[in-house]
Amino acid sequence: MHILVCNDDGITARGLQALVEVAREFGEVSVVAPDRPQSGMGHAISIGVPLRLYPSSAFGPDVAAWACSGTPADCVKLATGVLGLRPDLLLSGINHGANFSISVFYSGTLSAAIEGAFEGIPSIGFSLLNYSMEADFSAAQAIVREVILFYVANPFPPNTPLNVNIPNLPLSEIRGIRLTRQAQGRFVEQFEKRIDPYGQPYYWMVGRFESQDTDQDTDLWALEKGYVSVCPLLTDLTNYSYLHHWEAIQR
Amino acid sequence: MHILVCNDDGITARGLQALVEVAREFGEVSVVAPDRPQSGMGHAISIGVPLRLYPSSAFGPDVAAWACSGTPADCVKLATGVLGLRPDLLLSGINHGANFSISVFYSGTLSAAIEGAFEGIPSIGFSLLNYSMEADFSAAQAIVREVILFYVANPFPPNTPLNVNIPNLPLSEIRGIRLTRQAQGRFVEQFEKRIDPYGQPYYWMVGRFESQDTDQDTDLWALEKGYVSVCPLLTDLTNYSYLHHWEAIQR
Repeated sequence: MHILVCNDDGITARGLQALVEVAREFGEVSVVAPDRPQSGMGHAISIGVPLRLYPSSAFGPDVAAWACSGTPADCVKLATGVLGLRPDLLLSGINHGANFSISVFYSGTLSAAIEGAFEGIPSIGFSLLNYSMEADFSAAQAIVREVILFYVANPFPPNTPLNVNIPNLPLSEIRGIRLTRQAQGRFVEQFEKRIDPYGQPYYWMVGRFESQDTDQDTDLWALEKGYVSVCPLLTDLTNYSYLHHWEAIQR
Repeated sequence: MHILVCNDDGITARGLQALVEVAREFGEVSVVAPDRPQSGMGHAISIGVPLRLYPSSAFGPDVAAWACSGTPADCVKLATGVLGLRPDLLLSGINHGANFSISVFYSGTLSAAIEGAFEGIPSIGFSLLNYSMEADFSAAQAIVREVILFYVANPFPPNTPLNVNIPNLPLSEIRGIRLTRQAQGRFVEQFEKRIDPYGQPYYWMVGRFESQDTDQDTDLWALEKGYVSVCPLLTDLTNYSYLHHWEAIQR
């Protein structure tokens, strides 16, 4: 099996190293990752900007790796379009931090997985609920291994990327793996206003997530209860419930 | 009615000017738009970067306007979180270029509309199938007017942002308005390799869209046939069809 590994925290992130280590147990591994952190990049791509690919020896002689000057989605496009890779599986992460509820839309980690799905590659994004660059990924690695084994035994269709969130707990305290749906929630938009040395204002985003969902089938609920959350995602944003909301309109 | 107008082509774009002109017919208008083009930014937000808001007089004395140093999604967050705006309707665009099929994921125009939906604001993104900065928006303005009238008469729920694409035709040749679904398709990843003056390679993304869908209910079909496409979108990326794909897994 040939596995392409991407992320959004950049090629030096410990979470990427942790994911590559597990991926290598399953086959040949290639890495294409951003050359700097790209958190919150959503599904951004580089338009009107040329892209660079730098070979990297960061993962030793057995792993072909490249740092890319673009976004996570760019990394996947370059992996197939420039490097000609045709992976059997794409893994993205392990992200340093959570990606539940609507964070899916902001997440660079998941944009790589969704981009993989666009290209017909079975794709999984992994996130650990620990934002520290020094996070301990040992329990997360065991979960990644388990999820890949389940996936290989019973794969989802390629157009269904998976969003896997892992609670920040010792392995012995992780209660299991649940298939979940995206919790309803929002970010309460708050900004801290500061004044620069020239007297001009600037703003730091300090919004906090607010759940609007108490059901027991969500990613948020699973994580709060100590479960790994596996949420299958769409690559089609159509809201089919409303396709007949307006009568046919002829001008 | 208070209308917030955003876009991704930046505060100087003609498409934004065209949208503001129509919006003013319906009520009080505020504008928060990026200070430079942000095409292809997807749902990116600025993490770890402070944001600026510059008051702008670009739309005359009756329109409160700000240029924002961030992404389209940042613009919406700042509009509510810093400026305290509570619009009844959010309009994004008019984008210089198409946003059908999976382009929805890459689109800054639609990220502003989706962000509005996250905040409970009824939101519509408009795109004209003409990439030129000098595009003629007069037919598009008539369509925007028509869509807003339909929307006001029979609104979609706030968590269902609309993706409106307008064919690049004279008004008399536009055949009507259709509710559509996102066409299945992909980008064939192609890059043009060049060598910089220092002997190093760089890559321009030149991929082209390839439809994988010939059905007559898609955004792509409608546009090819001269219809305006109105595709209702989701804010929940869960693929509900696969929530029971794996048996409950207890560790």
